[in-house]
Amino acid sequence: MGVKKDLSPARGTRDLLPAAVAVRDHVLARITEVYRRYGYQRIETPALENIDRLQSGQGGENEKLIYQVLRRGLDSPVAADTALSELVDLGLRYDLTLPLSRFYGANRATLPQPFRSFQFGPVWRAERPQKGRYRQFYQCDIDVLGEASVLAEVELIEATAAALTAAGVSGTTVRVSDRRFLSALAACAGVPEERWGNLFITLDKLDRAGWPGVRAELAANGFADEVVDRIADTITGLQDVDAAKLTDQLAGALPELGDDVLADLATTVAGLAAVPDLTWEFDPTLVRGMGYYTGQIFEITHPASGGSVAGGGRYDKLVGRFLGTDVPACGFSIGFERIVDLLATAPRTEAVAVLYESDTPVTAVLDAARVLRADGRTAAPVRRSGKFGAQLGRLAEWGYTSFVHLRPDTGTELAERALGDKPD
Amino acid sequence: MGVKKDLSPARGTRDLLPAAVAVRDHVLARITEVYRRYGYQRIETPALENIDRLQSGQGGENEKLIYQVLRRGLDSPVAADTALSELVDLGLRYDLTLPLSRFYGANRATLPQPFRSFQFGPVWRAERPQKGRYRQFYQCDIDVLGEASVLAEVELIEATAAALTAAGVSGTTVRVSDRRFLSALAACAGVPEERWGNLFITLDKLDRAGWPGVRAELAANGFADEVVDRIADTITGLQDVDAAKLTDQLAGALPELGDDVLADLATTVAGLAAVPDLTWEFDPTLVRGMGYYTGQIFEITHPASGGSVAGGGRYDKLVGRFLGTDVPACGFSIGFERIVDLLATAPRTEAVAVLYESDTPVTAVLDAARVLRADGRTAAPVRRSGKFGAQLGRLAEWGYTSFVHLRPDTGTELAERALGDKPD
Repeated sequence: MGVKKDLSPARGTRDLLPAAVAVRDHVLARITEVYRRYGYQRIETPALENIDRLQSGQGGENEKLIYQVLRRGLDSPVAADTALSELVDLGLRYDLTLPLSRFYGANRATLPQPFRSFQFGPVWRAERPQKGRYRQFYQCDIDVLGEASVLAEVELIEATAAALTAAGVSGTTVRVSDRRFLSALAACAGVPEERWGNLFITLDKLDRAGWPGVRAELAANGFADEVVDRIADTITGLQDVDAAKLTDQLAGALPELGDDVLADLATTVAGLAAVPDLTWEFDPTLVRGMGYYTGQIFEITHPASGGSVAGGGRYDKLVGRFLGTDVPACGFSIGFERIVDLLATAPRTEAVAVLYESDTPVTAVLDAARVLRADGRTAAPVRRSGKFGAQLGRLAEWGYTSFVHLRPDTGTELAERALGDKPD
Repeated sequence: MGVKKDLSPARGTRDLLPAAVAVRDHVLARITEVYRRYGYQRIETPALENIDRLQSGQGGENEKLIYQVLRRGLDSPVAADTALSELVDLGLRYDLTLPLSRFYGANRATLPQPFRSFQFGPVWRAERPQKGRYRQFYQCDIDVLGEASVLAEVELIEATAAALTAAGVSGTTVRVSDRRFLSALAACAGVPEERWGNLFITLDKLDRAGWPGVRAELAANGFADEVVDRIADTITGLQDVDAAKLTDQLAGALPELGDDVLADLATTVAGLAAVPDLTWEFDPTLVRGMGYYTGQIFEITHPASGGSVAGGGRYDKLVGRFLGTDVPACGFSIGFERIVDLLATAPRTEAVAVLYESDTPVTAVLDAARVLRADGRTAAPVRRSGKFGAQLGRLAEWGYTSFVHLRPDTGTELAERALGDKPD
């Protein structure tokens, strides 16, 4: 017998207790049912990927947060002047999109065209621990690979909104924009292409910092006042535009915007208009963090959640990094942990405690439980201990909804009582 | 666009394609339903654990196979004479039992007593890659913590056998023994305690090597012929014993066997006799690899699988290593990957392909799919391409069971045809 040690999980991670898992399983089952109806097929990739794939530059800031895995069979101590990179060959995935791109490249020949992928699984990021953020968390993604038209975008938005509704998250708003709109905005304002990334990152802060904050940061980063004015005027003029007038207004505001971008947006507008019970808007301030987006981008927001509860977009160049041939791709990721935080509880399920005394024969206990289970019910033996009323209170706390009490003289009679009733 | 690269998953790991995931999800759903009825509650622990916990000596050979994770923020190159252990603070779990013991210690105050745990999740071992064995694989465990009597053993055996049957694995045999029987066997034969481990490891090879092989290895390891004779005679005399006579025969063969061991075995015999449709036997050759077992041990074998399809036993001292107080514990682990290998297919599910032409409006395509889904059906748009008959063949290969064909003049008519029918 050892000395009591620190029993908490590894820093920044957490244990999931039965009540938390029940909520998660409930949410996942509702989401899975919707995605199945839309034809998405679940796949899995390994948690570990070769480190050079994870550090290919596609992951932006996330690449700094990779958990790196030591090669096996290394000598200790380490030889002088050994670079850390020589000690490492694997890493834990930081998202599900990069592994999906590798997966699609490797398995394309046997996959349906287009391929509708559904992924649910943990990812790892060595972020500074903070409230509500964990170093292992689950992502829940659907992606369409091999579909070049915005049919993919509209379907992904419809499916994701339906999944959120099914999971019990209502009152959401879909926000749509296009990376190519942002590019045209920057180009029209005379911003050189190598500065677009910097501009977009700052614009992404509009919802928190507002125009004063964003203007200050852009000025500090060397953007001229007249450039910032033009950008701010264009964005402001495109907020809260009626959907029917959207493409006309965009064409007027940004003559350099391509006809393909406008046609895509018109199709998305028409497609989303036909989706029942969907609230959506064009949001010219939407940026999305990942650099790999190439077309329309989208988020879903919920009034009770600070950030977005889902996000995604088109990334037509990412699979090509692996396959050598570009494959049109578009995805939408539900912030599973945020959804679970919004929904505190799962539906209560019935469970019968089979209370027995220390002298009740084991076979009698198991027989009683078996009879209950044969009716499809949940039943588990619990030994009588302590004061009866107090134990019934604990049983209710632990999730039992009723009990039977076996005594040595019980025979085959099983009087079931709801928990919360007065003890006998 | 890059050059085509190696797209295979990390060495020793694998991608799971939709058909494979469908089988796994089907098996897991059946198992989960059974375990739920027995009152087992699903929990999750993080994949990463502090490395000193994983290397505490409880994991036997598995500790040599741990994937170790580099600390964050280290300097590169590494300073001269740095031990590898200084570079590492985390590791990937190699099983679910050690994390469960830590979890129980950390969360005991809020958990039901006894606590019935159900775990399903990946574990990682850096084993030499070989056919059918992977470096990431899933374990599926139930455990009862806080129950000292063999009620736990009988319940675990009943639940696991029921779960396997529900998953579609029939014709199994449960094999039961007791670590304390093995200890008495060794003691009665005059083997000093420090050599028991060596003896048991060799006895564990009986099913593959037979008595000639085991005798040769024991002789080579310095066990005297008369000791080996005595052990072999005792084991042989206890094989195929009628359940009703088992405890008498054990008491006669091994006078040093404790009354508690015999009473436990008698209870298990009586308990298992009451379980419907269960085939079981006492197997004096059963050893189980892990050193942490303290009481009854069990396996389930299936004629079509080389090794066991489930294994477990009582481990009353493991939680104490973390908590400082022993907690009685017993568990049973289904070899999930082996079960899935035994069952090649999942039930076929219906899916409708919504075939459309390149000039069919996107809204018409999505409307058609939406009508089908509103009936609870699975429907997904697929663009017409290539020869019609060949495309229908591909749709059937990809798992679609029927299709509708939208043409620009289709209107609202949706003539659905089964796949396999002659194309129009």
